[in-house]
Amino acid sequence: MKKVKIVVAGPRGRMGKEAVELVLETENFELAGVLDRRNDGKSLREAEGVDSDALIYTDIYKCFKEQQPDVLIDLTTPEVGMEHTVIALESGVRPVVGTTGFSTGDLAKLEDLCKQTRLGCIIAPNFAVGAVLMMKFSKMAARYFSDVEIIELHHDQKLDAPSGTAVKTAEMISSVRERKKQGHNDEKEAIPGARGADFEGMHIHSVRLPGLIAHQQVMFGSDGQTLSIRHDSYNRASFMSGVKLAVETVMEKDSLVYGLENIIE
Amino acid sequence: MKKVKIVVAGPRGRMGKEAVELVLETENFELAGVLDRRNDGKSLREAEGVDSDALIYTDIYKCFKEQQPDVLIDLTTPEVGMEHTVIALESGVRPVVGTTGFSTGDLAKLEDLCKQTRLGCIIAPNFAVGAVLMMKFSKMAARYFSDVEIIELHHDQKLDAPSGTAVKTAEMISSVRERKKQGHNDEKEAIPGARGADFEGMHIHSVRLPGLIAHQQVMFGSDGQTLSIRHDSYNRASFMSGVKLAVETVMEKDSLVYGLENIIE
Amino acid sequence: MKKVKIVVAGPRGRMGKEAVELVLETENFELAGVLDRRNDGKSLREAEGVDSDALIYTDIYKCFKEQQPDVLIDLTTPEVGMEHTVIALESGVRPVVGTTGFSTGDLAKLEDLCKQTRLGCIIAPNFAVGAVLMMKFSKMAARYFSDVEIIELHHDQKLDAPSGTAVKTAEMISSVRERKKQGHNDEKEAIPGARGADFEGMHIHSVRLPGLIAHQQVMFGSDGQTLSIRHDSYNRASFMSGVKLAVETVMEKDSLVYGLENIIE
Amino acid sequence: MKKVKIVVAGPRGRMGKEAVELVLETENFELAGVLDRRNDGKSLREAEGVDSDALIYTDIYKCFKEQQPDVLIDLTTPEVGMEHTVIALESGVRPVVGTTGFSTGDLAKLEDLCKQTRLGCIIAPNFAVGAVLMMKFSKMAARYFSDVEIIELHHDQKLDAPSGTAVKTAEMISSVRERKKQGHNDEKEAIPGARGADFEGMHIHSVRLPGLIAHQQVMFGSDGQTLSIRHDSYNRASFMSGVKLAVETVMEKDSLVYGLENIIE
Repeated sequence: MKKVKIVVAGPRGRMGKEAVELVLETENFELAGVLDRRNDGKSLREAEGVDSDALIYTDIYKCFKEQQPDVLIDLTTPEVGMEHTVIALESGVRPVVGTTGFSTGDLAKLEDLCKQTRLGCIIAPNFAVGAVLMMKFSKMAARYFSDVEIIELHHDQKLDAPSGTAVKTAEMISSVRERKKQGHNDEKEAIPGARGADFEGMHIHSVRLPGLIAHQQVMFGSDGQTLSIRHDSYNRASFMSGVKLAVETVMEKDSLVYGLENIIE
Repeated sequence: MKKVKIVVAGPRGRMGKEAVELVLETENFELAGVLDRRNDGKSLREAEGVDSDALIYTDIYKCFKEQQPDVLIDLTTPEVGMEHTVIALESGVRPVVGTTGFSTGDLAKLEDLCKQTRLGCIIAPNFAVGAVLMMKFSKMAARYFSDVEIIELHHDQKLDAPSGTAVKTAEMISSVRERKKQGHNDEKEAIPGARGADFEGMHIHSVRLPGLIAHQQVMFGSDGQTLSIRHDSYNRASFMSGVKLAVETVMEKDSLVYGLENIIE
Repeated sequence: MKKVKIVVAGPRGRMGKEAVELVLETENFELAGVLDRRNDGKSLREAEGVDSDALIYTDIYKCFKEQQPDVLIDLTTPEVGMEHTVIALESGVRPVVGTTGFSTGDLAKLEDLCKQTRLGCIIAPNFAVGAVLMMKFSKMAARYFSDVEIIELHHDQKLDAPSGTAVKTAEMISSVRERKKQGHNDEKEAIPGARGADFEGMHIHSVRLPGLIAHQQVMFGSDGQTLSIRHDSYNRASFMSGVKLAVETVMEKDSLVYGLENIIE
Repeated sequence: MKKVKIVVAGPRGRMGKEAVELVLETENFELAGVLDRRNDGKSLREAEGVDSDALIYTDIYKCFKEQQPDVLIDLTTPEVGMEHTVIALESGVRPVVGTTGFSTGDLAKLEDLCKQTRLGCIIAPNFAVGAVLMMKFSKMAARYFSDVEIIELHHDQKLDAPSGTAVKTAEMISSVRERKKQGHNDEKEAIPGARGADFEGMHIHSVRLPGLIAHQQVMFGSDGQTLSIRHDSYNRASFMSGVKLAVETVMEKDSLVYGLENIIE
């Protein structure tokens, strides 16, 4: 089986480091090079002490020309990521992009470019397959259970509540669920906030404790039963199975896919 | 909106009682009659003290002729259920059957009969929508997570371990999962049974405690993350949402459906 | 072993019925009679169809005089309960009282009466041993974990949030825990209520879903670990082990005990 | 407040590194030196790049003489640990020892030495306060709930099942619980091992999945209720709160304490 030749952009970031390691460890993947802002022309071994002779490029055009990769894994910023993605598609390289924050205008442009070039491109705000499945299953369950509450639990250094994943989950549920005010009509909060955040009648509860990492439980209830879907993320390695899946899938696509949930059946 | 006219067979059983109540309480359902072995010609009010004037029939042909129902809900035994289902289809009545234990021969015969009559027929061994979703999601998740363990928890008067639902879940997972021996190659049980039941490399654990009712958790793990799907059944009312769904769906079908999972999208 | 002779007050209420059954089923308990507002002089068999010849009394003095019971189990209202408890102590009968809502004045009076009579008396707002242990353990754990959140989950017909048990738990934790504002100093609620109810810096989250019964989880976190204590109450039978424990214990006491946690070691 | 002067033995091991960091970060602790097999006379800064000028000693006598520490934290092997502990007590230094595997003879000898010297000494096989509380609470709950099952969940590279903590928990429960064969008398395992490991009638279930770290849930059940106590350990930092507690406590003791559960109230 022919190996998939891969270039990683952003190889020194936290996600980028894991991606380099993933490519090196996966049998039918080959690290063709990395894109970085420094150390042009050096090998990863020389510059970063990584066990690989793959070259570092600061010039994306030169990188693509010399290495002829199949896939670009981009884990940089929205601005740089958009530029890279356009150049990749124009150069015949399929992008797998972990950057969040693309505008709808950006996405429309990329969709067109994919159509013209007949190349696959996958953009995913969340690469944790388990989290994506949790959201997908929650949307499916919401057709049959009109009552749902979300409990998300994170370490106590997290600033925002509810978490982005909780809000995204609520939005996905909301797209199929008839809006319903949950709980008893006359329920009263003896202490404000007890019933959590109200998102179109659903309730979201944000637990923060030292020790916790990133966890979410979606609970559905109806007469005599509850159905719970829970994702526990213990470390960043959890993202890599999603990156691997995206690389394998992007090779068989000829259009833009936004969100890992759309390549998961 | 025209009401769905329904006959319930087995109205004095535990499930049957709940089904009668469900039909009476659902706005667009109408109880056209019940099939029982006694009290022919009496009303449910007279014979059972139920708040309904629906008539009790011992003769299914007479019942169907006089009442012209749309749907038969059958919650009897496999033998009686098979006979009822055949007569219903031949009489233009769509069956919703909660009986387990139909043979493959029975199912083939019913499939043919549905084709000839172009009538829907739904046979479901488990009407708890939450349990069916748990199994469906587990099968879906197994494509992305090769490691899974099932923990099922029941009251301590249960005789069999693992539960039927746990084995059914394992079978569904097995149909899409590459067979894999889980755990460390050299793992050792210091006390026999610690690692649970081995089902094609997956492990099933059966917890039994007074106080518990019927619960199951399916846990998937991969690098840095776990995904858990859990169903808690607190009482028999949990089956009725599935019966309701089946009645609504059978009106739009023209073939046999076996298993609630196949009408859940 | 001599049987404990017991009178039950309030035998037709939901708790009272369970208590009558408990006394009848427990080997070394004997039902000496019941106190009710009607059916004076009839047996429980005649009046209520219960399988017991114990007599119904409307007059507590007559009941105590004729039956000479050891223990009164009182499951009535605060007013009636207070009157019964005083008369019981004055008559040499040890009270086990499940009524909430006694005033501090009432309790002081009963404490004095116990001292004078050297009789035990147990008053318990919550007889579920599991719930009482959950609260006791939470208080103990709070000495070693300064961060704690309470998640309580109930059916969606419950009116008040947080539940009384959650508030009681928070109060008990608060009595040993240094007051601390939990979570990040700069944390923000994007949707109000996400972080739950604030009780002296602790957070309480109230989940309401159909299907649920009565559940509470107390979660403690510190560096790299969490400790969770959870109680699930599935039905009223859960109270009876506490009533049984109280009856057995009250026979060995010579003073007032308020709260089951004080007879649990 | 006078600082506690501490020497750490085994400073390059995984636990030892954390202990050094703990001492450096704790306000009223002072790192007086470390005991190691190499780099005698160098500072931790020189030899290990740690931000501390504490000296490394290969000779324990010289270390104690020059530094006059209050406490020795020993995280070495059983053999070395025993030698260090004896010398510490003879030198007026209070030992806190995380080594498992001391013989009963060793413990008897240390108990005597503590009596003679009137010095405290704490030996703890498990320093995770949460795990110790879980075991302590389980033992307490077992007085009131005769039925209990243990579910322990670990990463799939763990060799032994059940875990040491699960067996220790079962032993502690066993010491107060009347032996009872749990589950239905006629229960049958359709697949061997389904009901888990049998420990004096209790059942232990060992779940192994990639992604998991170290978790244990102890479940008690009785009529209508369950009580669950769960500890989740996410990383080694979880041990340090126990080491800190032991150092603070050993200063106030004048005898041997074996097991953190005995200094936790």
